[in-house]
Amino acid sequence: MMAGSSALHPDHRIGVVQIGLGPIGQGIVRRVLEMPGVRLVGAVDPAPDKAGQDVGSLVGRARVGVEVQPRLDPDAVAGASVALHSTGSHLEAVMDQLLALVEAGLSVISTCEELAWPWHHHPGPAQRLDRAARRAGVTVLGTGVNPGFVMDLLPLVMTGVCTRVEHVHARRVVDASRRRGPLQRKIGSGLAPDEFDRLVAEGRLGHVGLPESAALVAAGMGWRVDRIDNVVRPLIASRPIETPHLSVRAGQVQGLLQTVTAWQGDRERVRLDLVMALDPPASEDAPTAGGARGVDHLRITGEPPLEVVVPGGIFGDTATVAAVTNAIPRVMEAPPGLLSVKDLAAPGWWSGAAW
Amino acid sequence: MMAGSSALHPDHRIGVVQIGLGPIGQGIVRRVLEMPGVRLVGAVDPAPDKAGQDVGSLVGRARVGVEVQPRLDPDAVAGASVALHSTGSHLEAVMDQLLALVEAGLSVISTCEELAWPWHHHPGPAQRLDRAARRAGVTVLGTGVNPGFVMDLLPLVMTGVCTRVEHVHARRVVDASRRRGPLQRKIGSGLAPDEFDRLVAEGRLGHVGLPESAALVAAGMGWRVDRIDNVVRPLIASRPIETPHLSVRAGQVQGLLQTVTAWQGDRERVRLDLVMALDPPASEDAPTAGGARGVDHLRITGEPPLEVVVPGGIFGDTATVAAVTNAIPRVMEAPPGLLSVKDLAAPGWWSGAAW
Repeated sequence: MMAGSSALHPDHRIGVVQIGLGPIGQGIVRRVLEMPGVRLVGAVDPAPDKAGQDVGSLVGRARVGVEVQPRLDPDAVAGASVALHSTGSHLEAVMDQLLALVEAGLSVISTCEELAWPWHHHPGPAQRLDRAARRAGVTVLGTGVNPGFVMDLLPLVMTGVCTRVEHVHARRVVDASRRRGPLQRKIGSGLAPDEFDRLVAEGRLGHVGLPESAALVAAGMGWRVDRIDNVVRPLIASRPIETPHLSVRAGQVQGLLQTVTAWQGDRERVRLDLVMALDPPASEDAPTAGGARGVDHLRITGEPPLEVVVPGGIFGDTATVAAVTNAIPRVMEAPPGLLSVKDLAAPGWWSGAAW
Repeated sequence: MMAGSSALHPDHRIGVVQIGLGPIGQGIVRRVLEMPGVRLVGAVDPAPDKAGQDVGSLVGRARVGVEVQPRLDPDAVAGASVALHSTGSHLEAVMDQLLALVEAGLSVISTCEELAWPWHHHPGPAQRLDRAARRAGVTVLGTGVNPGFVMDLLPLVMTGVCTRVEHVHARRVVDASRRRGPLQRKIGSGLAPDEFDRLVAEGRLGHVGLPESAALVAAGMGWRVDRIDNVVRPLIASRPIETPHLSVRAGQVQGLLQTVTAWQGDRERVRLDLVMALDPPASEDAPTAGGARGVDHLRITGEPPLEVVVPGGIFGDTATVAAVTNAIPRVMEAPPGLLSVKDLAAPGWWSGAAW
């Protein structure tokens, strides 16, 4: 099954269009421009400082003769088989874009966090998308590094060598000290603790997609999920922290600790701990040596029990660009519908060579 | 695509037959008997102490009313959709069995090490099997923990979050001290160094399947392989080692170190180091603490660079049983032909529930 194969270009390259030109979208464009088997035929972003520019120049590369379009209309996506989509984290906010792409006959690979496994938290939109994709004969996939890989797909893959699985635990520690200013603010750095709690209560702080990862793991294991809890707590700085973007005083927030648990009855089946902080507190598996203070740590309780450590952790921005672009040939070969990373062929690097 | 779906039992369980009742085959049977969605309809082994016995009793479980057949003939596999096959490591030695199963209309999941990626070292048999499987509308897969997971599929999966990959290195250290006697002898323990070298030269020592893993990794990365080197060296004991099965004197062999490298021109692309020894020498990532002296260690050179550590290492026998049985639903849904683990849906535990 080769959804969209009829839209291969005469030169046999896969035509793609990039929707959204924030930092991740721009990273995707840079990688796509290096892939000989892929042809960037369009780019869409409504920002006044982007629309109208050559997309190559916009991302710091040579001009490519593709002008950024302000609107997602049929002209903007003509000639594309696959849309790479990175405009937002919340499914409801991007539903119209996803449906427009599907109805234009494009498969979609999106970084929308809630799309990674929308069947639990957003069953209505998931069904609508799935039906539209099947009708159009295209594939829709939500992916990235988190959700989409390190706290869901990778633990699922590890269970492939288990005869029994009782519980899945993933812990990710991200040191935000050297990351972009917006990310440092997104994790609450510099806030007073009560302001942090207020923003959490309003749903404005916390990593979007973590509950989806837990639901995806549970679905992969065949566990019926009765409840998913999502708790976001502040990490309070015990000493001042300075970054190029902001200052944190002792007693202010240096980052967040988010814990999502998925329950089958009164039995915890999945636990995901995400620490995103400036100078996250050291722990035995997040040594300070070498400057890399992040870590990814998986623990499968079962037979055999398994522990997996990624020292330093997987660097998020690059990994998300990779997850999206490496998925292109897999999506081209997938059956139509709304799929998840666990349904596709096993992940892997794609050189971008003619396909 | 549901190869063999027409052979689902009236009760909707998947009918399987087990070919080969050595330690791994018996482990597979024990797991299959626990899977409500699978029905064991046959078992074949020519050994006089096995044929004619009830297969449940043979594996230390309750009688199941299935008698071990001495020969792989049509009666022995009647009612099965999938054959689970564990009779040998070398492809040429099991080709007739594999072809007979395929021609009987069964998909095959085999632990035959050389079947994990036969396209490089055994292209003729690979083509024959592929053609026969397509003709019969069934799927043939070689899998296990090594080859099939830890030194090939897992590194491939990790590259799914890389935008660039230059080199893949996997190192596996297995402490054979507490393993079965046959395994301890298979790795040369207790031999004199010159006897070890003679057996290596005769192709009678060394882990079968390691060159196949390297070829599989290269194929997954899209690297043309010009040469695969396979070097097996003895590890010499510096002090006496006693196990329940044998004694090693200082100066005798305590195990082996096997290194396989895959080359694209004069560029090393894949390096696999396998240490299998009694009390393998400690190294920084194989601490002696806790008694678990094995480790699996992956290193991807690329963007981002990635390191993955499985402290203790993945326990082989259980993991191979798991890899085979967890593949059942994936093979049922796969297209016909000779596939590899990288072509199937992402791996993961299967509870064995009705499918």
